[in-house]
Amino acid sequence: MVLKKGNTFDLLSLYSSLKKDLKKIDQALLDIVISEESPIIEAAAHQLLGAGGKRIRPIFVLICARLGDIDKEAAMKLALSVELIHSASILHDDVVDDSDVRRGRTSVKAMWDNHVAMYAGDYLFAKSLTSVATLNNPLIHDVLSQTTYELSLGEIEQIRYQYDSTQSLRVYLRRIKRKTAVLIAASCQLGAIAGGMEDKAKRLYLFGYYVGMSFQIRDDILDYTMTEAEIGKPVGGDLQQGNITLPAFIAMEDPVLKRQIEKINEKTTSSEMVDVLEAIRTSGALEKAQNISEKYLQKAVAVLDEFNDPKATKPLRQITNYLLDRAD
Amino acid sequence: MVLKKGNTFDLLSLYSSLKKDLKKIDQALLDIVISEESPIIEAAAHQLLGAGGKRIRPIFVLICARLGDIDKEAAMKLALSVELIHSASILHDDVVDDSDVRRGRTSVKAMWDNHVAMYAGDYLFAKSLTSVATLNNPLIHDVLSQTTYELSLGEIEQIRYQYDSTQSLRVYLRRIKRKTAVLIAASCQLGAIAGGMEDKAKRLYLFGYYVGMSFQIRDDILDYTMTEAEIGKPVGGDLQQGNITLPAFIAMEDPVLKRQIEKINEKTTSSEMVDVLEAIRTSGALEKAQNISEKYLQKAVAVLDEFNDPKATKPLRQITNYLLDRAD
Repeated sequence: MVLKKGNTFDLLSLYSSLKKDLKKIDQALLDIVISEESPIIEAAAHQLLGAGGKRIRPIFVLICARLGDIDKEAAMKLALSVELIHSASILHDDVVDDSDVRRGRTSVKAMWDNHVAMYAGDYLFAKSLTSVATLNNPLIHDVLSQTTYELSLGEIEQIRYQYDSTQSLRVYLRRIKRKTAVLIAASCQLGAIAGGMEDKAKRLYLFGYYVGMSFQIRDDILDYTMTEAEIGKPVGGDLQQGNITLPAFIAMEDPVLKRQIEKINEKTTSSEMVDVLEAIRTSGALEKAQNISEKYLQKAVAVLDEFNDPKATKPLRQITNYLLDRAD
Repeated sequence: MVLKKGNTFDLLSLYSSLKKDLKKIDQALLDIVISEESPIIEAAAHQLLGAGGKRIRPIFVLICARLGDIDKEAAMKLALSVELIHSASILHDDVVDDSDVRRGRTSVKAMWDNHVAMYAGDYLFAKSLTSVATLNNPLIHDVLSQTTYELSLGEIEQIRYQYDSTQSLRVYLRRIKRKTAVLIAASCQLGAIAGGMEDKAKRLYLFGYYVGMSFQIRDDILDYTMTEAEIGKPVGGDLQQGNITLPAFIAMEDPVLKRQIEKINEKTTSSEMVDVLEAIRTSGALEKAQNISEKYLQKAVAVLDEFNDPKATKPLRQITNYLLDRAD
């Protein structure tokens, strides 16, 4: 399925129809973090309200719910909840940045920041639960608890396979599924539930899963291509920190590159990374990874095609392509 | 209400009637941590299955549920869930021990341990949610989410009021309520729900709240009286780490002691603590704190007296006194 020109205008109208709801969600997020005065709440606020919050997950909840007969109150609570889970998980990801450890910056300040980030994450996570507590549908609690569980397994696997160049591609795919795709999938599934379409919930989950996989692979490619200024962290930081992602897996098909990648460990410096990163970049691995990302996107669109209702599913196609920077 | 001699035997029979259920809970906890191989899961296992796990909270769920017409499946799931929340919260409390920071032990190892403890906590917390997800009663989700929220506020306040000798006693009582009493209260309330006694849930919550307050105050006293060998951490560690608890509040009624306590900060060493700790110990503050702990216990028992059913509530009285080391 190829999107046609002209979607840009439609996307604006899509956003304008969502604008009011997203504003309400922003207000609800603000309410959560203005109540108390504390460095922890400030950290939570910074994460929630800082620049770059595209509210991808709330948007998927709302658009999926609109496919059916939306229960507005439930949809808004669920949208808030998934955004809070996402923010909590980012805060915990920021704790104990191994690159800081490696560079000897294990200062009291760094430890203090860790403490604050962890508790800020705990706080937002607790809020994600209170947001949906009163929704009287065990399926909702089942989806959210399973999602949280998968997220925590993703965290565990990220540590377990750090700097492990013998791990299989399957292990990588499972990890990004757990760390990213499952929450986007759950957002779509919960939207279906809030739209009274429990029969379509599994298909929309699958749609969200494919979108999430495509999205994360694209993110993993960007780690190799964006400049430090654009990305806010060192280029190739994933690989240096032992997070072996799809480009590295593809590059390792070349035995020479494989040996170079195998040598990377906790002590490898940024200057020692320059050559291997350039070799991966020029190996064609990024293009191959991009192809795989696009294949997941095509699968997502194929799920929408099953609905046999191009008009109703149009907003989902638009937003998917927009989020993946392919709104052309 | 004064307990009579001979309760020891009854307590054993109480335990023997609970034994089967507690064994099942231990097995369920084991199942949670044998599935995966990872340092994080090992940390979780160590916390869950290590020595000293009295399973206080599961016991309160089960005994309260037995006051009514127990839904065994629900009671067991809830018992498991509260124990997992408790274990997760302890793991997060262990992260970033400020005393380590102060003593310059901000090693890579300490940072790694922090990472592991945090994710182990996240994992157990996620498991606490999956345990109860399928229970179709919004009240359960409401109680658990509120409890988690209060716990996270307790964490936030612990940091906010660290080394703050100007905080009021009310702030301390609210903090121990959130950090300890609320989860024990919720255990009793959830037991009531699993026993089909939603009408009694609020009273049993109150009972658990009083027990929890009494219990935490007693714990805060023990920090001043137990030896390092008994308690596994330095005597008076609470005060040295800026956690101002009831004995210190009472001691500060004496202006001389107040000035000594006000001087304690992040840099105060253990040897500098010796004098002030001894002064608090001999000030009568511990005895006064003990009286307050006992008053909470009396309030707990008074709630049970309202039930007008000494036989049915006997196990709760026994277990309460046993847990507070007053089984005489």
